[in-house]
Amino acid sequence: MSYRVGIVGATGAVGQELIDLLHRRNFPMAELVLLASSRSAGKTITWQDKSWTVQEATPEAFDDLDIAIFSAGGSTSTDLCPEAAKRGCVAVDNSSAFRMDPTVPLVVPEINPAAARSHQGIIANPNCSTAVALMGLYPLHREFGLKRFTAATYQAVSGAGAAAMAELEDQLRAWAKGEPMTSSEFPYQIAFNLIPHVDVFYDDGYTKEEHKMLNESRKILGHPELRASTTCVRVPVLRAHSIAVNAEFERPVDLARAREVVSLFEGAELVDDTASKRYPMPLDFSGKEKCGVGRMRIDSALDNGLALWIVGDQLWKGAALNAVQIAELLVADKLVTPKTTV
Amino acid sequence: MSYRVGIVGATGAVGQELIDLLHRRNFPMAELVLLASSRSAGKTITWQDKSWTVQEATPEAFDDLDIAIFSAGGSTSTDLCPEAAKRGCVAVDNSSAFRMDPTVPLVVPEINPAAARSHQGIIANPNCSTAVALMGLYPLHREFGLKRFTAATYQAVSGAGAAAMAELEDQLRAWAKGEPMTSSEFPYQIAFNLIPHVDVFYDDGYTKEEHKMLNESRKILGHPELRASTTCVRVPVLRAHSIAVNAEFERPVDLARAREVVSLFEGAELVDDTASKRYPMPLDFSGKEKCGVGRMRIDSALDNGLALWIVGDQLWKGAALNAVQIAELLVADKLVTPKTTV
Repeated sequence: MSYRVGIVGATGAVGQELIDLLHRRNFPMAELVLLASSRSAGKTITWQDKSWTVQEATPEAFDDLDIAIFSAGGSTSTDLCPEAAKRGCVAVDNSSAFRMDPTVPLVVPEINPAAARSHQGIIANPNCSTAVALMGLYPLHREFGLKRFTAATYQAVSGAGAAAMAELEDQLRAWAKGEPMTSSEFPYQIAFNLIPHVDVFYDDGYTKEEHKMLNESRKILGHPELRASTTCVRVPVLRAHSIAVNAEFERPVDLARAREVVSLFEGAELVDDTASKRYPMPLDFSGKEKCGVGRMRIDSALDNGLALWIVGDQLWKGAALNAVQIAELLVADKLVTPKTTV
Repeated sequence: MSYRVGIVGATGAVGQELIDLLHRRNFPMAELVLLASSRSAGKTITWQDKSWTVQEATPEAFDDLDIAIFSAGGSTSTDLCPEAAKRGCVAVDNSSAFRMDPTVPLVVPEINPAAARSHQGIIANPNCSTAVALMGLYPLHREFGLKRFTAATYQAVSGAGAAAMAELEDQLRAWAKGEPMTSSEFPYQIAFNLIPHVDVFYDDGYTKEEHKMLNESRKILGHPELRASTTCVRVPVLRAHSIAVNAEFERPVDLARAREVVSLFEGAELVDDTASKRYPMPLDFSGKEKCGVGRMRIDSALDNGLALWIVGDQLWKGAALNAVQIAELLVADKLVTPKTTV
């Protein structure tokens, strides 16, 4: 059996990774249709020896598709995911539009695959930092019972899109030539700087990005009492988000067992040998499917606490990879039916 | 009254800032003597229209000095601070060699100036991240009673010295030319990367830098029960350290009052207006005497908790400025006597 798959937002940073991962992982595609806004329609996109003409993402574009992965921003998803669902095309949505909708499952396949079973045509993909953080926290939660955590993120510029990644590179090229730097994607210069501001601010002083870490973690883990406080910071790194976490658990934490459950978890790679200076770094986890977990130690501030450092490719596990894994789960669990048997 | 002042480690990154700050702040100097290892002796150092020939830092070099500020690493301080003290020259030491020595005061002049009174010839200057963190935490501690905190640092490369700063610049210039990058000051490439490793690792999994945050905070605040867990990370920023902090207090925290006590504290500048996208950033706090505090919000994970973001020039408040402030305190409180009245 193979499926007609659409990518909405095919010209963006995540869209490019989706094309790559669907092929790399041999997703059973009868056809791949690339969709984008009217502005990008008509563009040609190539991957290895294949090429596609981008089509406009209209409601009717979903008539013949079985699965559509959305990565074109919240307003496109709000408009078009229900149109896709209505037409029998399952929408896997990478935006935040439907994540907290109680009728929409929010799925990380290594954590809560069963949640996908109740989908009504839309499945949400989590926020990038949340997905990466949970690759370290989930196996520990299962073993010790996560009570609360504090986190500080170090978010790569590509999390803000391809143009933001180009902005950091342009600023550094200008600097190397002794020319002035300009900013348009970020509110301030990001080269040689840090911007403690990702997504919009809420009245409580947290950003929307920081709220996502708490609310999405609660939903994915099925743990409404979980407490979390996060500071999200943009750093001059091209790719892969890093997160420093201090976590408190219900039960006493044995460090050797903590390392063991992380190393056994399919979403994580334990890189934790300080004597050999081995710990996860963004350069090492760019283009890796697993997220790196290291710097694990008994926390000196929290009871039953553990401090750790998690690094993951936010374009992959934080976006495109998780979405493709959801599509694979739909196929494996027969949660999608092809309209035409090819 | 004016004093004969020595700088040990005059050729380093902090040494250069010491020369600048002693002049800028009109420290009452009868003479400034620049000292360094035998390797650097004979070099000429200039500041504006003045120049000095660097002399070798021998025990006898302190015979005629009243105050010597040390910034040449732990082993130089271990050897020479006692020699200076023995010769009636007060040593202000920027290394970690004497910080936890119970007979040596560890002083941040805005916090514990009285501790300097008991000096026996050596006064220690705190670790850079600790000094910066306390510029936000101390006024809050005084008001609400600090119980514990978790912190994640974003440490600029100049904290590892002038050569480390040059290494980041060299890597980025090589990258801009399409040439390979090389690393020698840091264990891995720092351009476009993060290294969660500052100073040596201890058996408990924390680094020495992370231990300093806990132990030095306890000593400076006179608060042996304080708990803290820190993750120290090197980031591709040239100057000024940033720290994301989640702090828990004994008493309930009123956010308006928290902002007020920070804004009234002489070591801090409140930059906290998220509606106008105003928060402290390293580019804005390089070459500033005060440390920036912002992103203040009631913590969603800790009881009586506050989350905040602190940024400060680690070459200044984290090193040279705090040392000069200690020298000023010695003069103001008559804790040093000039050998010769000039």
